[in-house]
Amino acid sequence: MNPPRPDAPSAPLPPAVYDALVANRDAALDDLCQWLRIGSVSSDPAAAGAMRAAADWLEAKFRSAGLQTQRIPTTGQDLIYAATPPVPGAPVVLVYGHYDVQPPEPLNLWISGPFEPTIRDGNLYARGSTDDKGQVLTHVQSVVRWLATGTPLPLQVKFLIEGEEEVGSAGLDASLPGLKELLACDCVVISDSSQYAEDQPAITYGLRGLLAMEIRVDGPKHDLHSGSFGGAVKNPAIALCQLMASMMGPDGRVAIDGFYDGCLPPSSEELAQIDSLAGDDDALAKQLGVPSLFGEPGFSTNVRRWARPTFDINGLTSGHQGEGGKTIIPSYASAKFTFRLAPGQDPERVAAAVAAHLRRHLPVGVSLQIVPGHGAPAMVSSTTSPFISAASTAIQAAFGVAPVMIREGGSIPIVAKFQAELGADCLLLGWGLNDDGAHSPNEKFRVEDYHRGTMASAQLWHQLGQLPS
Amino acid sequence: MNPPRPDAPSAPLPPAVYDALVANRDAALDDLCQWLRIGSVSSDPAAAGAMRAAADWLEAKFRSAGLQTQRIPTTGQDLIYAATPPVPGAPVVLVYGHYDVQPPEPLNLWISGPFEPTIRDGNLYARGSTDDKGQVLTHVQSVVRWLATGTPLPLQVKFLIEGEEEVGSAGLDASLPGLKELLACDCVVISDSSQYAEDQPAITYGLRGLLAMEIRVDGPKHDLHSGSFGGAVKNPAIALCQLMASMMGPDGRVAIDGFYDGCLPPSSEELAQIDSLAGDDDALAKQLGVPSLFGEPGFSTNVRRWARPTFDINGLTSGHQGEGGKTIIPSYASAKFTFRLAPGQDPERVAAAVAAHLRRHLPVGVSLQIVPGHGAPAMVSSTTSPFISAASTAIQAAFGVAPVMIREGGSIPIVAKFQAELGADCLLLGWGLNDDGAHSPNEKFRVEDYHRGTMASAQLWHQLGQLPS
Repeated sequence: MNPPRPDAPSAPLPPAVYDALVANRDAALDDLCQWLRIGSVSSDPAAAGAMRAAADWLEAKFRSAGLQTQRIPTTGQDLIYAATPPVPGAPVVLVYGHYDVQPPEPLNLWISGPFEPTIRDGNLYARGSTDDKGQVLTHVQSVVRWLATGTPLPLQVKFLIEGEEEVGSAGLDASLPGLKELLACDCVVISDSSQYAEDQPAITYGLRGLLAMEIRVDGPKHDLHSGSFGGAVKNPAIALCQLMASMMGPDGRVAIDGFYDGCLPPSSEELAQIDSLAGDDDALAKQLGVPSLFGEPGFSTNVRRWARPTFDINGLTSGHQGEGGKTIIPSYASAKFTFRLAPGQDPERVAAAVAAHLRRHLPVGVSLQIVPGHGAPAMVSSTTSPFISAASTAIQAAFGVAPVMIREGGSIPIVAKFQAELGADCLLLGWGLNDDGAHSPNEKFRVEDYHRGTMASAQLWHQLGQLPS
Repeated sequence: MNPPRPDAPSAPLPPAVYDALVANRDAALDDLCQWLRIGSVSSDPAAAGAMRAAADWLEAKFRSAGLQTQRIPTTGQDLIYAATPPVPGAPVVLVYGHYDVQPPEPLNLWISGPFEPTIRDGNLYARGSTDDKGQVLTHVQSVVRWLATGTPLPLQVKFLIEGEEEVGSAGLDASLPGLKELLACDCVVISDSSQYAEDQPAITYGLRGLLAMEIRVDGPKHDLHSGSFGGAVKNPAIALCQLMASMMGPDGRVAIDGFYDGCLPPSSEELAQIDSLAGDDDALAKQLGVPSLFGEPGFSTNVRRWARPTFDINGLTSGHQGEGGKTIIPSYASAKFTFRLAPGQDPERVAAAVAAHLRRHLPVGVSLQIVPGHGAPAMVSSTTSPFISAASTAIQAAFGVAPVMIREGGSIPIVAKFQAELGADCLLLGWGLNDDGAHSPNEKFRVEDYHRGTMASAQLWHQLGQLPS
């Protein structure tokens, strides 16, 4: 089902490029499936070989299209860099993405294997299909197919694809200052987010920040019989629950002294714009399978998701977790948790406030270990730049509908770093859907969105190529 | 190293019996090793053959000594019943024990194989050595050797040895009402506990009850990205922590309405007696590896462990538990927990109070499932009965030191059932030590305690035989 060739609002995409993209949809899908079969789980030491294979695959793809490539070693996973030839007088765009994926567990909930890409009902199911292999590959495909037609690209496109996005980007962070010259660009394009709704594309101009932490509460040096010792020692799992409960009030506000310090609320214009996009809370609750939505009082659901800070537990572990009972006082209990941060909140200051809170509230009779995780500030960029306008035009041409301007509740820590190190704003153009299950079992990417995203990417090069450098 | 023949405080054990027990120590130890080599793990379906073999071994042992035996099928493992001839005018004693053992895992922590009994430093190491094969066999040996001397026993001893103690005794529970006549007795003797300390034997006259429960808090129907949805829904792991934290005050008291209803405190005499046994809290804290002991205010450590009710979490499960981070709102969170109950607390009423508390405190935005577990009331028996006096005399004769009267914090649910069905009190005479590792790797039983326990058992038949029926 090929879409009609659209009338682009300004000069149309070269017909040879358009036709090549349409004609090679099956090959493009096959490419993605190849890449998805490589289980490049960056958090799993046993997947080291798969990490190398996923980087190799991408490097080979760029090379075969004639791009200049570099494999850049880091303290962790290699960075893959590639570039089309410079175009004097035209802007330079850097595409950023990642070839690593989230762990696939729990495996028993996948309908088809996480690394066996399978199409059902127009969706391609696989770990990494939307986050981020499928989305980043739209930009690779648009460039590779464009060049294959013999048509010159109207601007230089650089690619920087990393392998540690899901584990904090430590290697890229350390390498970035030394790569300023190589990566110099006018704007960064990132497709690692979502459309606002099905068939309603969006440009994301704001992201929340992130702070990840882990704590472990230690009690007795080994599990104790709860009959013989219950009442004699503090139960570390109870202590952990008391600590976690102390961090959030029953109303959903974070109950840590200083947590909200510096937190900038959206402007009233922005609140009005966000609320104009408001969906139906009951419908969302039904879609997510919860009895009702819940969150900080005084803000709409979209504002709470996009612009307000939060506290979430990501995992709890203690004692006996299998079938049946085991009458023990567990030796330890641990929790992994994250905060989403609003503009104005400083991750390091929040981390210090959280640590102080935990130490102050630590019950007697147990000890506490705090493992600091990665942090990143929130980001909000201008909604009126020429890059935004070009992206809006390109998306409308490919999707047939103008994108809405949104914020996103997630964090792409690299965005703030690109702003700081490269002085470049990021264009966040998500082709996915909110229900793609980015970090869940049965992650998917709509096949049609993969193809439209590829077309929108080509339209973007065409639109950006018309801007002055 | 044979101990000197003690002067029993009252009439001495028949010399032929005493001498036979001393002379046959090696044979008695060999018997135990034979039984221990049979890996009768009741929770392991693959050990069905070993379960039969362990029952066969015991049945043959009784038969070869001329006892009348019965193999009683149940819904699960067979019960082994045996009895010496009735002695008109003398009491009838029922010895209860079990031939099944805990799973030996983790196997890599065993110094010698769990089913290869090995003596090191005066201890016999094997799964089941103390729990309960070694302890129950002391009573079998004392009866068998006594009869082998041709001396008549001064009372009737019945044995009921089950094969499902480690998995909840379902078969025995269902069979017990139909066995009232067969098992009719004046008191029940159980050796499945410990001495108070090394070389300080004890008689346990009280046990705490138990109530086990499990809850599951359900949030979204699958894990959600904590960036996209954080702030929109209640995090089920936070809800679980809030629920768990709501059940215990910071002071260690259980904070559930009605929990302490009916709870009988020990008498002031008993408190004084318990406190006279008080150990060093700092030394215990050091031994357990905790910064300090902790528990309900107003009670000593021993009282808190033996006579006060408690709440302990046995296990917590939610979300991501492996290495690294995963920025999710988990779909659900669950907890396994137990209450130890004091005399006067009714497990069913406590379960209802807990369920009401959980439902009343359930945060909005999540749902709750409560899985009720098993319950058993506490038990306290008279410390001044003639049976207790006889046991005290017998133990002093065999160990050379008078036993102390203690309670135990654990639960032996069968004790309450014997009281209810047979109208008989239980004599809990533990020959083991607290550090025998009953449910741990390298379970052991001191060889000397096996022999002293056997001698104490013979002394017990002798003392009880002097009581009127």
